[in-house]
Amino acid sequence: MIVVMNPGAGEQEVARITDKLKKMGYGVHLSTGENRTVIGVIGQRREEVAQMMEAMPEVEKVVFISRPFKLAGREFHPDNTVIRVGDLSIGATEIVVMAGPCAIEDEEQLIQAAEAVKKAGARVLRAGAFKPRTSPYSFQGLEQQGLQFLNRVREKTGLLIVTEVMDQFTVDEVAECADIVQVGARNMQNYYLLRELGRIRKPVLLKRGLSATIEEWLMAAEYILSGGNYDVILCERGIRTFEPYTRNTLDLSAVPLVKQLSHLPVIVDPSHGTGLSGLVPAMSKAALAAGADGLMIEVHPNPQEALSDGPQSLTPAQFQTLIKELKGVALSVGRLI
Amino acid sequence: MIVVMNPGAGEQEVARITDKLKKMGYGVHLSTGENRTVIGVIGQRREEVAQMMEAMPEVEKVVFISRPFKLAGREFHPDNTVIRVGDLSIGATEIVVMAGPCAIEDEEQLIQAAEAVKKAGARVLRAGAFKPRTSPYSFQGLEQQGLQFLNRVREKTGLLIVTEVMDQFTVDEVAECADIVQVGARNMQNYYLLRELGRIRKPVLLKRGLSATIEEWLMAAEYILSGGNYDVILCERGIRTFEPYTRNTLDLSAVPLVKQLSHLPVIVDPSHGTGLSGLVPAMSKAALAAGADGLMIEVHPNPQEALSDGPQSLTPAQFQTLIKELKGVALSVGRLI
Amino acid sequence: MIVVMNPGAGEQEVARITDKLKKMGYGVHLSTGENRTVIGVIGQRREEVAQMMEAMPEVEKVVFISRPFKLAGREFHPDNTVIRVGDLSIGATEIVVMAGPCAIEDEEQLIQAAEAVKKAGARVLRAGAFKPRTSPYSFQGLEQQGLQFLNRVREKTGLLIVTEVMDQFTVDEVAECADIVQVGARNMQNYYLLRELGRIRKPVLLKRGLSATIEEWLMAAEYILSGGNYDVILCERGIRTFEPYTRNTLDLSAVPLVKQLSHLPVIVDPSHGTGLSGLVPAMSKAALAAGADGLMIEVHPNPQEALSDGPQSLTPAQFQTLIKELKGVALSVGRLI
Amino acid sequence: MIVVMNPGAGEQEVARITDKLKKMGYGVHLSTGENRTVIGVIGQRREEVAQMMEAMPEVEKVVFISRPFKLAGREFHPDNTVIRVGDLSIGATEIVVMAGPCAIEDEEQLIQAAEAVKKAGARVLRAGAFKPRTSPYSFQGLEQQGLQFLNRVREKTGLLIVTEVMDQFTVDEVAECADIVQVGARNMQNYYLLRELGRIRKPVLLKRGLSATIEEWLMAAEYILSGGNYDVILCERGIRTFEPYTRNTLDLSAVPLVKQLSHLPVIVDPSHGTGLSGLVPAMSKAALAAGADGLMIEVHPNPQEALSDGPQSLTPAQFQTLIKELKGVALSVGRLI
Repeated sequence: MIVVMNPGAGEQEVARITDKLKKMGYGVHLSTGENRTVIGVIGQRREEVAQMMEAMPEVEKVVFISRPFKLAGREFHPDNTVIRVGDLSIGATEIVVMAGPCAIEDEEQLIQAAEAVKKAGARVLRAGAFKPRTSPYSFQGLEQQGLQFLNRVREKTGLLIVTEVMDQFTVDEVAECADIVQVGARNMQNYYLLRELGRIRKPVLLKRGLSATIEEWLMAAEYILSGGNYDVILCERGIRTFEPYTRNTLDLSAVPLVKQLSHLPVIVDPSHGTGLSGLVPAMSKAALAAGADGLMIEVHPNPQEALSDGPQSLTPAQFQTLIKELKGVALSVGRLI
Repeated sequence: MIVVMNPGAGEQEVARITDKLKKMGYGVHLSTGENRTVIGVIGQRREEVAQMMEAMPEVEKVVFISRPFKLAGREFHPDNTVIRVGDLSIGATEIVVMAGPCAIEDEEQLIQAAEAVKKAGARVLRAGAFKPRTSPYSFQGLEQQGLQFLNRVREKTGLLIVTEVMDQFTVDEVAECADIVQVGARNMQNYYLLRELGRIRKPVLLKRGLSATIEEWLMAAEYILSGGNYDVILCERGIRTFEPYTRNTLDLSAVPLVKQLSHLPVIVDPSHGTGLSGLVPAMSKAALAAGADGLMIEVHPNPQEALSDGPQSLTPAQFQTLIKELKGVALSVGRLI
Repeated sequence: MIVVMNPGAGEQEVARITDKLKKMGYGVHLSTGENRTVIGVIGQRREEVAQMMEAMPEVEKVVFISRPFKLAGREFHPDNTVIRVGDLSIGATEIVVMAGPCAIEDEEQLIQAAEAVKKAGARVLRAGAFKPRTSPYSFQGLEQQGLQFLNRVREKTGLLIVTEVMDQFTVDEVAECADIVQVGARNMQNYYLLRELGRIRKPVLLKRGLSATIEEWLMAAEYILSGGNYDVILCERGIRTFEPYTRNTLDLSAVPLVKQLSHLPVIVDPSHGTGLSGLVPAMSKAALAAGADGLMIEVHPNPQEALSDGPQSLTPAQFQTLIKELKGVALSVGRLI
Repeated sequence: MIVVMNPGAGEQEVARITDKLKKMGYGVHLSTGENRTVIGVIGQRREEVAQMMEAMPEVEKVVFISRPFKLAGREFHPDNTVIRVGDLSIGATEIVVMAGPCAIEDEEQLIQAAEAVKKAGARVLRAGAFKPRTSPYSFQGLEQQGLQFLNRVREKTGLLIVTEVMDQFTVDEVAECADIVQVGARNMQNYYLLRELGRIRKPVLLKRGLSATIEEWLMAAEYILSGGNYDVILCERGIRTFEPYTRNTLDLSAVPLVKQLSHLPVIVDPSHGTGLSGLVPAMSKAALAAGADGLMIEVHPNPQEALSDGPQSLTPAQFQTLIKELKGVALSVGRLI
């Protein structure tokens, strides 16, 4: 149930309503727009509570939400959510490019990659300190040391940092270092982790699970939002199908679909989404044309020697060419890069 | 195995080689480019035959093709295939738009749709006379009468016609009416139909099967090509996945991937690919950005009353708006519409 | 809509009702059980027609069928359908085993295989004269010659024959030779072929499509049933998933599910369903335990030299061992083999 | 690389070899069979180390393992692993039945369920205190209180307890209560949780992820095994496909396939695997016939009022009937229940 306040209603009026709801045992979430405030009410649906609310003078109307996602839904928040990180706005006109190596291998490699992607126009450096690997015998990331390298690279380059968190224990540690905290596809339904991320005050980039439906993905976002962290960026990264030529099948229809269902920004990762660097340029352009708010692209100074995901990484030169080509596509759909 | 002739080799030299190969029991397919001719040799791979060929003065080199698709592969035909239909070129700079209703319902509806899509800029009318329907009790199309309506609409509007053939019996009948003969997703591996289509001299639009891999799709094209019909247009129309919100999952990564593997033109059907008219504009733009050579879009004068596929059809007004928006996207990737 | 006649109603009473319905423009299908006749009425649902029918003294009740499949549904025909072929009953207590090579390669190979499977207890020989192959360059079957070999092997061994038909042109030819006509997975939605098979009077074994839902499969059966051929055997043969170790994923839950929804017999093909001969014994046992009415198993005198599907074929010795092991499993679920 | 010791080699000889390997920087895992010890060597493959080992008198041979799973593979441990919990052996001749409600709702419901499943022949009670739920607004389990109820029910009934752990924080707490600790499908690739479970000394029941390949599943087991906990039970619970009638598609071919690749016991959960209680009996029988070592079945005293998964739960009476029917099927494949 959401309670839509009158345009004129101020903080006091909103507080009067929320207090009433809390006393009746409901959870309450506020969405304060330019013109009016919307109150998300979490708890059992009761017709008489809705009628009581509608009778209040400061309330315009009460809407029952039929979708299972409430705070993530367009009904609760009709405008696009724009997330501000430093001087960057995600979900606004500018396309956000996040780029960098899959894993942090050493400080030298990280700096090289960071400077290359910055020069080409990326605003956010992506690089993993904690790596989810299928095999316990594979390189698992530099962990804490990786976070230190990230801190130094940020100081040196001014790039914002997005990096993955893999468990609740390290949420605070990662959130302290990262400007955006990433949840990987394999953890999309790690509900304890999601709840922890509802507690922090850093934006969360939530990758779609390998076989997650759109609804399950938005419900995972709902876990974070309902914990009080409203800054969730969704990231489409390919789903698992029967096709063997590509690593995953990048589902670009998820972009306009999520835009219809939800107010949250959506970005696309064509590197994991295809697994083939040769497909990354075409799919990056397609993602922008489909309405994505940003891209997350793997760039490695030397893809052939990468400790993970080499075949899907662009070289810095390829990345630079791609960014130039993307400018026209962005413009053609009313966006900037 | 393919035999690449010397740049200077003329018809006679080519004939000398092909005769030799035929006498040894091989099948032979010619690809005559601007500079040189390539001979596709179908039959058991034998090292000594390759050596014999390489020893001939008019032969530049012999290449063994590792992929199972031969004539459909880039190795056999390195340039893009451009298919000419009337004054239309498919696979060249211009984006080809095919539009119209799912099924022909009556002459009035067909003419209305045809004029609307022509006005908006479509060059090809799509409309089904024979309809593959899941239920034997659903409307199965106007069949022969539908073909007559198509003939009259072409005369009236000058639009080219693409329409589906469902079985061998009607191949000649449909090919006589259609400018492009369509094979539906459910018939992609109907090999007897494919062989019949190798015999005709009209371009074939081959839709990808609901769960066909890229390789199986190219092998289906190979059936037609190896029959001697080299004009095959591939059409991505969504694959079957676990996602319930969309009818299918449109696999746009198939576009650049097929472009790498094959020389054949590729178009995209975002209407069947998503099943939701609200997603068609975004996915049409994305398809062009991904490198598609054309689009196939369902347009119905009155989607709410359509006998089939109403929810995925655009109104003529929506279609007109979309075509305008597509112009910029096409330009941004060096194409025209 | 189905009209259930009174237990006492005879041919004359049934005719009176069906005449009435036909005059109103409905299609009519009879299901004559031991105790009563059920009339399937195909056409637009109209409440007043139902009321009129219920008012007739020879009618017990009228039932509206909510599922899209009508004649294939349990509601229309509550008892299991038992199909008689020669002295064989498919869908009764006895488990039917169909076995043999994927493709007929030569007469010698076919006879060897036939005698081996007969000795082990198979009642039906499976062997393909027409082969749907992904590549136009692969062995496509011996075609007409293969049918001749099948005729001779039947005379010699007394085995019944199941063999695949791939197109409408050859339906009569194949139906003349075969005791059971098989439709392959790739042709499950070849509606023109299905309609032709509704016309013949030989049982049809309908394989499930590679990515067909249970409902689509039953709708394909409905095409055949609504054409007047009520003898359809369904065959689960694995669906396409993301798992690379097996060729397909054998969906055994389809067996009890189809048994709930439909009255038609269901058999299982563990050879195509897994693609690995090492899994065939376990999955054959599991199929019987799940309630399957029969098995279709690939057996080749010399799997390593088979022209197609060698890795999934059992040797005659392995097949013989398997049949022995199956006897206990069949008994444990009240069946015989 | 695995080092197979001579049959006669005792603890001292084994220690001599493992010390040598550790000094060279390798990780070492022992598998002590009845006749001989096998040493799993984790680290970079080096030919000269293998040769050095083979030259030692107490070593029989050295085998390189080509599969990515090492300790989970049959090559490392050729005999079936039998896991002992109390007086129960999992992976031996006796089929293990785990049954109970999806979630613990209150003590009364739990006791009722426990007594019912015990009476019917179950040896292990399944019941969730911590519940992974798609929605943050759904019932999330009784958590710590649920564990207390489980402790009391064990005392009262003597049943063993299997219950799910959802995060690292509660591993010790859950492991103290549970006889078998369950990892749910959504956590199959929660690597931090898997590592924690490698540390404990309770058997772990590892459910297959919703779209996990067989190889990824065995690699998840490898995480636990390589941590030093060798008691892993694999549980097939259905994979995600396009079929809408069932909740998941139960992949029974996984059972014989995993048995070939691995020595670990495999059980099947037909309740989650189908989502429909009407399919549970047939699929339970099929699972045993396919070679499963046990079953995990949802039983609820009152399925229609269950707080989660009602439609897939059996009533106690249905469960009792099923267990009786399973006895014959188990016998038919040489097992007991």
